[in-house]
Amino acid sequence: MTESLSNPSGITLFDTTLRDGAQQEGLRFSVEDKLRIARLLDGLGLGLIEGGWPGANPNDTSFFARARTELELTSSRLVAFGATRRPGGRAADDPLVAALKEAGAPVICLVAKSDSRHVEKALRTTAAENLEMVRDTVTHLVAEGFEVMVDCEHFFDGYRHDPGYALEVVRAAGESGASVAVLCDTNGGMIPSMITEIVADAARLGVPLGIHCHNDTGCAVANSMAAAEAGVIQIQGTLNGYGERTGNADLVTVIGNLETKYGCRVLPAGRLAELSGVAHAVGEIANQLPQARQPYAGRSSFAHKAGLHASAIRIDPDLYQHIDPALVGNDMRMLISGMSGRANVLLKASELGFGELTREQASELVDVVKEREVDGYSYEAADASFELLMREHLGLPTSLFEVLFWQASSHQTGQGPVTTTAVVSVHPTGDASRQAGATTVEAVGDGPVHALDQALRGALLDHFPQIAGCRLTDYRVRILDDGHGTDATVRVLIDTEIDQRITTTVGVGTDIIEASWEALVDAYRHALVSGIRS
Amino acid sequence: MTESLSNPSGITLFDTTLRDGAQQEGLRFSVEDKLRIARLLDGLGLGLIEGGWPGANPNDTSFFARARTELELTSSRLVAFGATRRPGGRAADDPLVAALKEAGAPVICLVAKSDSRHVEKALRTTAAENLEMVRDTVTHLVAEGFEVMVDCEHFFDGYRHDPGYALEVVRAAGESGASVAVLCDTNGGMIPSMITEIVADAARLGVPLGIHCHNDTGCAVANSMAAAEAGVIQIQGTLNGYGERTGNADLVTVIGNLETKYGCRVLPAGRLAELSGVAHAVGEIANQLPQARQPYAGRSSFAHKAGLHASAIRIDPDLYQHIDPALVGNDMRMLISGMSGRANVLLKASELGFGELTREQASELVDVVKEREVDGYSYEAADASFELLMREHLGLPTSLFEVLFWQASSHQTGQGPVTTTAVVSVHPTGDASRQAGATTVEAVGDGPVHALDQALRGALLDHFPQIAGCRLTDYRVRILDDGHGTDATVRVLIDTEIDQRITTTVGVGTDIIEASWEALVDAYRHALVSGIRS
Repeated sequence: MTESLSNPSGITLFDTTLRDGAQQEGLRFSVEDKLRIARLLDGLGLGLIEGGWPGANPNDTSFFARARTELELTSSRLVAFGATRRPGGRAADDPLVAALKEAGAPVICLVAKSDSRHVEKALRTTAAENLEMVRDTVTHLVAEGFEVMVDCEHFFDGYRHDPGYALEVVRAAGESGASVAVLCDTNGGMIPSMITEIVADAARLGVPLGIHCHNDTGCAVANSMAAAEAGVIQIQGTLNGYGERTGNADLVTVIGNLETKYGCRVLPAGRLAELSGVAHAVGEIANQLPQARQPYAGRSSFAHKAGLHASAIRIDPDLYQHIDPALVGNDMRMLISGMSGRANVLLKASELGFGELTREQASELVDVVKEREVDGYSYEAADASFELLMREHLGLPTSLFEVLFWQASSHQTGQGPVTTTAVVSVHPTGDASRQAGATTVEAVGDGPVHALDQALRGALLDHFPQIAGCRLTDYRVRILDDGHGTDATVRVLIDTEIDQRITTTVGVGTDIIEASWEALVDAYRHALVSGIRS
Repeated sequence: MTESLSNPSGITLFDTTLRDGAQQEGLRFSVEDKLRIARLLDGLGLGLIEGGWPGANPNDTSFFARARTELELTSSRLVAFGATRRPGGRAADDPLVAALKEAGAPVICLVAKSDSRHVEKALRTTAAENLEMVRDTVTHLVAEGFEVMVDCEHFFDGYRHDPGYALEVVRAAGESGASVAVLCDTNGGMIPSMITEIVADAARLGVPLGIHCHNDTGCAVANSMAAAEAGVIQIQGTLNGYGERTGNADLVTVIGNLETKYGCRVLPAGRLAELSGVAHAVGEIANQLPQARQPYAGRSSFAHKAGLHASAIRIDPDLYQHIDPALVGNDMRMLISGMSGRANVLLKASELGFGELTREQASELVDVVKEREVDGYSYEAADASFELLMREHLGLPTSLFEVLFWQASSHQTGQGPVTTTAVVSVHPTGDASRQAGATTVEAVGDGPVHALDQALRGALLDHFPQIAGCRLTDYRVRILDDGHGTDATVRVLIDTEIDQRITTTVGVGTDIIEASWEALVDAYRHALVSGIRS
């Protein structure tokens, strides 16, 4: 059984979510997004994180500038991507090579043409000059103290057209001091048996090799596995397979396979169980719909529907699953959802400090969650809304105030500014109501949700000074059913920070304002009652 | 180069979308859906279509009953799925075997246990009796005139546990007259190198083999390719990879690979170009969101964003795509983004029918796009907004109307309903303005954007009856700077369908209503001017 790699302890993962992943249609990372993703990848323990192409666009340049002070990596090393110097120049004088040095990353990954047709037609230089560009740029950067890797672009197509030249580029990179020459299936047309043959041939050069696959034949992960079996020491890919066209090799699946199928440790001890969580968190930042069927991390990936299976699973779960999902943090990391059972609810209740629920209470709560998920609610992230649901169920207070009226209105005349105002009227309930009547506040804001937040805060502050320390930090909108135009159901998630702890509330409706309002009110409700236990 | 199969003309595709595909979480086919999908698969020319398990559930029984009169297949043969007879009985007396015969399909696919642990723990019978169940059921059905195939469930896990027994099941199927013994990776845990070794070993039995893979390691397609290289004559899978957990091998990708990478004709002549269309149509019936990154058929699968690529594509498109997308009925698309260069803009302009732009015009337009992307706009998806930008740049008309005023207002009293109203006032410009003054319309809606759409449509219809056929089909919101609460910048994308063609517009602002309004107005602007070339 081939389950062993040529160098089982020697595979390094190279993440290019922030560079090649960002080439995906519809995906655009802000500098802040990039910093957050880099921290998540570092937390997972990936070896190398490619941050972008400094000097090529302002966003990437700014990322490296901010990374110097704002990004403290503990497990990973940061990589700056760039190209070999221009034809006919000197690496030492090349402005883009200079930008790479200035980026401040300890590792530089250079893209080099390795298909002679691309050298001629796209780069418009000679085969010899292209080799000189590789040698000069690698030698220069190594001398400057950087670790240098070379992405051999279009290597496989190049090899199939002109194997000698493709291999010359690999040799030039290795001889000039590159630590790895990465064989790229840039157009993504390979299948594993081709990879096996070509990597085995390239390996004879003695240059340490890496692999970079795209998924155009649906084989990006399998091609990466084939290359690992044939001896590469580095696998490049992206979180969740983001990338141009069909995407890159999904590192989530690559990690799952290497760790559980090959017994090859590519993450620091104990981190594998964070795989699903990191995959979902990166998806949230990228604002991409989760892939329910994603291997290892997908919501459906360990779900069973067939009655045939379900009965057998009760006898022995291992009969119907290829690995224990807890290994990769699936199922176990699921918070509260319709798929969860009583056990999750019991666990969550004690996590929130509600002590032991009865089996019956837990079952009823699971049913409520399932019903609400049918309407579009999701409690996996919305812990504060789930707590309010649980409080209601246990007869504990869920609110210290009542909303009497709210209104939000936007208007614009001609090309003038858009003006938005909101009015909110609240009345304290319980003890507080003895001392005070209703408070009505009008506020303006950047958009109706902001205006409503300002008005609601203003009205509540009158009665509850403690919410002064409560701050909205994130606001996310997801359309649940595509294809219905502007009257589709939307789900809004709002993150609120109180005492340096972030909690999340959820609202659902066909009206984005109504859904936002629900999440907004629940955020303040939760902030006020969450400490109250009776 | 391994690109040849052992039997290049001998691969038959076996589609199980209607049976195994229907096991996917969230997917449910009505009988009508199944009939429609079967007709599409037949139109594509797949060899075998598994319709379901007659006798096991009413939906599948009804499908086979209706198929007899309502489903006329021209290329494909219909398959009924079922299990071997019960332990200790006789196939001739088994009620589920009887239901299979009554289904009226010419081909029967029987599932048989081939992992000795499953025989013992799940089936609770002996290894010998399980073999007898295979022999008896296959012999009986062959004698009754059916072509019989045997799905060897858990074959690969079984082989790894007890190779002798797994192979015995294959031999029993073959010796009893089954036309194919299908090796199933039921739990989906295999990787291609394992498949290669095990299929090669099973092939020595001389029984014609098939392969059935699940995608739990992200290798379902690659495993199917490995099995094809090792000699199987049948590949089972589902359209778009639908299926339990991570899904089955995606036949769309399998077909693309076999036809374009191996030169193996698995579809009748001329049908390959229908691949993308059938994939999308089945997705519509299944009510599943399209997978933009799906190999061969995905909307993004031949889309290019990087400026580096675009300039080379103008020289020779084959340098940057693994196949000509027209082969599989897809198109190459250029995405316009700040990362793109002049070349993308030039290509996009000619794609939109604006002919050749000068280099200077293209450069200026790239600069405008880059500037607007800094503000949060994105033109990758928003083709209609890009066209408006280009029209403005070329001095072509961008609007036939002017908005004088708009207002949107939502309010709620206590626990009553949320009421939203909008008022829009427009004035036609140009020729139309001679005949008509301003029109003001008030409308209610599900939320402010819906209400604004209703009011704007109402006001415009007065002057431009042609927009009656224009329909909003999707509405997406993206928060651009996380971490700023409700006053973050948002980007809204709106899809509009006109004459069965979908175009997209974009709006940006700190106010979600303002951003939505911009995208909404641009949608109607574009609908009215897009045909005008001077």
